Amino acid sequence: MVAVKTPLMAIHFDPTNLSAAMVGDKHGLTQQEVADSQPAAFEALSGFKQSVEKDDYGFPHLPFKTKLIKEIKAYAKSVAGKYDTVCVVGIGGSALGAWALDCGLRGPHPVQKAFSTKNPRLVILDNVDPGFIHSALESMNPAKTLVVPIAKSGATAETMSVFLIVHDWLHAKLGGSKAAGRIAVVTSENTGELKEFAVKYKLVTFHIPKNVGGRFSVLTAVGLVPAALAGLDISAVCKGAAEMTRLCWLENLEENVALKSALLHWLIWTKKKKSIQVAFPYANRLWGAAFWFRQLWAESLGKVKKDKKRVFNVGQTPIAALGATDQHSQVQLYREGPNDKVYSFWAVGKWSESGKIPKAKTGYASFDYLAGQSLSKLIDVERLATAASLTLAQRPNCTFTLDKLDAWHLGALLQMFEFQTAFVGRMLEIDAFDQPGVELGKKFTFALMGREGYDEYKSEYEAYEARRAGVKL
Amino acid sequence: MVAVKTPLMAIHFDPTNLSAAMVGDKHGLTQQEVADSQPAAFEALSGFKQSVEKDDYGFPHLPFKTKLIKEIKAYAKSVAGKYDTVCVVGIGGSALGAWALDCGLRGPHPVQKAFSTKNPRLVILDNVDPGFIHSALESMNPAKTLVVPIAKSGATAETMSVFLIVHDWLHAKLGGSKAAGRIAVVTSENTGELKEFAVKYKLVTFHIPKNVGGRFSVLTAVGLVPAALAGLDISAVCKGAAEMTRLCWLENLEENVALKSALLHWLIWTKKKKSIQVAFPYANRLWGAAFWFRQLWAESLGKVKKDKKRVFNVGQTPIAALGATDQHSQVQLYREGPNDKVYSFWAVGKWSESGKIPKAKTGYASFDYLAGQSLSKLIDVERLATAASLTLAQRPNCTFTLDKLDAWHLGALLQMFEFQTAFVGRMLEIDAFDQPGVELGKKFTFALMGREGYDEYKSEYEAYEARRAGVKL
Repeated sequence: MVAVKTPLMAIHFDPTNLSAAMVGDKHGLTQQEVADSQPAAFEALSGFKQSVEKDDYGFPHLPFKTKLIKEIKAYAKSVAGKYDTVCVVGIGGSALGAWALDCGLRGPHPVQKAFSTKNPRLVILDNVDPGFIHSALESMNPAKTLVVPIAKSGATAETMSVFLIVHDWLHAKLGGSKAAGRIAVVTSENTGELKEFAVKYKLVTFHIPKNVGGRFSVLTAVGLVPAALAGLDISAVCKGAAEMTRLCWLENLEENVALKSALLHWLIWTKKKKSIQVAFPYANRLWGAAFWFRQLWAESLGKVKKDKKRVFNVGQTPIAALGATDQHSQVQLYREGPNDKVYSFWAVGKWSESGKIPKAKTGYASFDYLAGQSLSKLIDVERLATAASLTLAQRPNCTFTLDKLDAWHLGALLQMFEFQTAFVGRMLEIDAFDQPGVELGKKFTFALMGREGYDEYKSEYEAYEARRAGVKL
Repeated sequence: MVAVKTPLMAIHFDPTNLSAAMVGDKHGLTQQEVADSQPAAFEALSGFKQSVEKDDYGFPHLPFKTKLIKEIKAYAKSVAGKYDTVCVVGIGGSALGAWALDCGLRGPHPVQKAFSTKNPRLVILDNVDPGFIHSALESMNPAKTLVVPIAKSGATAETMSVFLIVHDWLHAKLGGSKAAGRIAVVTSENTGELKEFAVKYKLVTFHIPKNVGGRFSVLTAVGLVPAALAGLDISAVCKGAAEMTRLCWLENLEENVALKSALLHWLIWTKKKKSIQVAFPYANRLWGAAFWFRQLWAESLGKVKKDKKRVFNVGQTPIAALGATDQHSQVQLYREGPNDKVYSFWAVGKWSESGKIPKAKTGYASFDYLAGQSLSKLIDVERLATAASLTLAQRPNCTFTLDKLDAWHLGALLQMFEFQTAFVGRMLEIDAFDQPGVELGKKFTFALMGREGYDEYKSEYEAYEARRAGVKL
């Protein structure tokens, strides 16, 4: 037999434990069920392809925007060495992509390497908690901080308020002209007052394409500017995403991981009533990506659906769990609680460190079987053991494996999930790209903060409070 | 009118939006339903009280263990100034309590204040990811690190393997006798080989009471030793928990927040079919407590229940969401997706910082309504707006408010949730204190790592793999 050397560059999908043969007909899929539904997968693929060709949705094109990638790298090069902190001011889709990349490539806080101008840290101000913002500012040196406000609408209350504070902090410490040189704005080209603000103050600005929403924007300037400033290899991220994009257009379920996993997840969700999906990475560096995925899946696929007959609520609740850690926190529920979940393990094929456990025996059985083995083996074994124990309790689960955890594979993984989500949206016959459900809360916030033009919502809120006043429980 | 000065020391519970009057009969509770179920609450209280009097469960006694608290403080004092990092090696209940306290009182990484021997950082090694452990060790100076391995069983595979690595790292850099002085073990008094190891190496050791399980152990040495070493005020934590304990034994639903919230959560879960509970703190510092709660609720209340008639799966899936951040990530699903959730907001009454937004107007409407206001107002408004928008979509929700976010209130909050969980366990007629569902996974792990005595599980795992080999999907 000829040994073929396979390059370590792929994402594999193992759906075996979604099968009825493993978890029973009530909770798993039969080959027949999958075969019967294949046309839905190919319809989703061709329908989505048509939308993309009409330019409705831009994310599939992003990995190929080499001009933008070059511009971002050139900007990062031009400021390199002048800062030790990149401070992103953004929330939701304007924050999670940068975090997924940074956590994925440099690891989660608090165990990143020491920060310096050669290895700047990334601080993401994605909340309006006053103590959080206060501590973050205290931890940064304005003379060594680059600020990146990110808002597609240019009007997000949380981002505007924190940016006003950070802008003032920079001005007070550096003066106006120096402060302006330390800000790079990411926003829409033709809408929103953040853009006007940037023009007025002559700030470096990168634009977000109109046809790319926040949760699909990791490969626009939204994710790439912070990543490049933090010194991450954005070219490799985009190359992995580009190769994945090629695979995602293939009309072949065995090669198109996004389409196959979309089909199986859609079936197990809708036919087997799994209302929760647990995204279960076994790698601390994928924790950011799991939170990024949690937004992608929830906002894209949680919708009020109206058809001719009725109005109803659609959605599968995503949960982020971390292996092996959450075996000691959630797996009791996962194995013995209601069988209402599907589990997606995210595995790393080849670890860059082995985590060698010392060879010396201690004389204690609870320790000595581990001696001379490695953490990389242990974490894989823990995942396999958990998958087996869930399967034997008839809990459907599947596994995505990245051959390595590097920029190329991370870019590929994120792009794969975006396609998967778009495909499931088509299968569900919903719009995966809007978010009408958050409007009312935003309007109440504007009204309660006294923004002009929201009197109607102020009255509605007051009527709600008046009703509350009469209620006793 | 006479102004009465109320001390800022309490946790308030507002159940209004759980009411049928606010969210409709299908999703909310009527006064009659609550009145009819009150006997179940008082039975749960008296039943649990009897168990505690028989010494079955120890957590209600913990805040009153002043001798232990003194011993821990004395130990922390004796080593003070000699280290800048406390390295906990523990997983699940051996990690989450310390994190809830540290995050709650000093804030989440990466925005804690600079670390030093006067303000030591807490690094929690709660996984076996080799890259995570490698980076963590690189970030620590062995001459300035105190290591705290925590395992009640003294045999947890993840903790033993990482401890072997950390122990070796200390020995290699400091030599045996110095290394021994830098370790404080937390384990059971009379069981487990970690205890024997500690005796052999003459290590400082603190014991975990037999009748306190991991997820209820934050006020044993498990949570208090790391907290005290990190310089947190463990006396204040225990005082808050002690006052809460007093309230939790009151046979009065209006004063006993734990009992009232247990009753309403049990009713809304079981009668209104809310299979998911979203723990939704509006404060970055409560993010650790939300993850701690997620274990408490999942492991305690996710169980196979057997009664005379049948065997079935019980459990409500807890989710941690962070306000206002997750409004831009999850609220689209929460408002428009399936009405299968109950939301528990966790609010802070009085913030220690206001987060003043600069007064100067920019000339842009999207910014200027915020000018001169504060983040502390904005984050409250965001929470109120979100609660209103969920209520108007008939999504039941309630709010816990801590008057302040300090050690006293944090101790009270954690103790309140432990009582609440114990009470709900009684109402469900399940054992809230065991975790049989994780045993099989542990045994598979031992078997696959080659530990002696697990051949039976090795065969079972191999049979499972053999079945998988024949399955195609």
